[in-house]
Amino acid sequence: MKTYLECVPCLVRQTIDTARQVSDDPTMHDSIMREALSTIARADLSLPPPVLGGVIQRIARVTTGNDDPYRAAKQACNRIALTMYPELEQRVLASRDPLETALRLAVAGNIIDFAVHATVETARITESIEECLTAPISAQVLSNFRASLERARDILYLGDNAGEIVFDRLLVEQLPMEKTAFVVKGRPVINDVTREDAQVAGINDLVEVLDNGSDIPGTVLSDCSASFRSRFEDADLIISKGQGNYESLSDHEHEIFFVFRAKCQPIAIDTGAPVGSIVFRHRPRPV
Amino acid sequence: MKTYLECVPCLVRQTIDTARQVSDDPTMHDSIMREALSTIARADLSLPPPVLGGVIQRIARVTTGNDDPYRAAKQACNRIALTMYPELEQRVLASRDPLETALRLAVAGNIIDFAVHATVETARITESIEECLTAPISAQVLSNFRASLERARDILYLGDNAGEIVFDRLLVEQLPMEKTAFVVKGRPVINDVTREDAQVAGINDLVEVLDNGSDIPGTVLSDCSASFRSRFEDADLIISKGQGNYESLSDHEHEIFFVFRAKCQPIAIDTGAPVGSIVFRHRPRPV
Repeated sequence: MKTYLECVPCLVRQTIDTARQVSDDPTMHDSIMREALSTIARADLSLPPPVLGGVIQRIARVTTGNDDPYRAAKQACNRIALTMYPELEQRVLASRDPLETALRLAVAGNIIDFAVHATVETARITESIEECLTAPISAQVLSNFRASLERARDILYLGDNAGEIVFDRLLVEQLPMEKTAFVVKGRPVINDVTREDAQVAGINDLVEVLDNGSDIPGTVLSDCSASFRSRFEDADLIISKGQGNYESLSDHEHEIFFVFRAKCQPIAIDTGAPVGSIVFRHRPRPV
Repeated sequence: MKTYLECVPCLVRQTIDTARQVSDDPTMHDSIMREALSTIARADLSLPPPVLGGVIQRIARVTTGNDDPYRAAKQACNRIALTMYPELEQRVLASRDPLETALRLAVAGNIIDFAVHATVETARITESIEECLTAPISAQVLSNFRASLERARDILYLGDNAGEIVFDRLLVEQLPMEKTAFVVKGRPVINDVTREDAQVAGINDLVEVLDNGSDIPGTVLSDCSASFRSRFEDADLIISKGQGNYESLSDHEHEIFFVFRAKCQPIAIDTGAPVGSIVFRHRPRPV
């Protein structure tokens, strides 16, 4: 997906959030903002928004020397989500269709996204859970998902954000875990998951955890490590979680299930799904 | 008032609105956006937001050769407001306190602002009228306002937007009209009022209409004509309508009554008034 004009004010707002997260110094905020604006003014907007998002995060890191500005916030999100986990796990196990329930809860966790809102509240997560448990999703895509899980030999689950990763764990537990690997970012960027979050969420104890070698808040293969690219190409099924992964892989040729909540107007235009709705899409494998 | 960091994404969003207003060509949108971003990246943010807003509007005009992109929209707003005028005039005349009612209705019209929302709906205006007729305003400031109107020899009413100007007319009719002049912009910028709007709203038939010689969506004296600056300095009472005028005159030494609805977070921070509330402030004359 390209960077829409509407993505630009949002990237600028994200710059302010990050500047305040990395530093308390207004001179620093000013300097990060100006550098980000000059960069966007020269950027190739045919590239997906996470590319530019990644560049802005790098500007903030380089300007301040703070390598992981969202670390405390990510830890807080993981803690909140972990307190919810036991009850949610019970809900999955007691449900008529554990795979569908876990999928819906994984989407519910997608509300925890600092790229969209600078803060997240427990009440908002609880609301998201109830919304996602009842929102319409395609029965056809769900049926394709089951068939693909059965057929696949090598599944990659592309993780999204801290906190949300605990909700992803519910879904991972319903997958054929022996043939699944969970993918995290190569280094910290906004609140995207890294190896540390996978460890805290207990994903390490369930499946292999891979890092993609990149610091872009999405999955831009050209920025990933060679070893990750080769794993990606070998995989015969990708579960792509979150909007950043959709934005960067929506034009990619691979069997992919995209799972996220549509959070803004450009995504609504690109997917045809209203803002706030669940996007659960199947890109079949190329013939 | 300085340009807050939060003003920047809003200015960028305003750029997109304007780009779409001036042209249907995506290449043109792209070029206006990039030029605006480079300009903001180099701008002096200690200046009030309308300065940068004016520069962005100039970029859009120069890029496309369209000198008055909001003309049709302004005409539509004037037409809508004029259909409301007779009933509103009756409300003023039948009210216990015509000056206060007219003042409240003038604030209600301040909801018609393309710098904040790209479109405006009749329903939203009607809602604004009911809100503003009952919202709290300071009895002390109102009492100062009456006293100042009585004492003043030379009053300038700084107009704001098209459509809104018809609501301003209700207030102008309650002022000592023989010593009042109504101020419009020197040339079109966004939906700010020009001589044409004053004519359509019938303000010309009531009081002298002055133009300030500037194309900034506010009142930045250094950008105004020498003749307007001299009229401004001679005036002993200024009625400053709208947020753009507040932003550019908030630090000015003059007796000014500011009248507008607070429309964004930076204004809420600067004035201490919550977003959506009526701001009716008195800056007494310097001693």
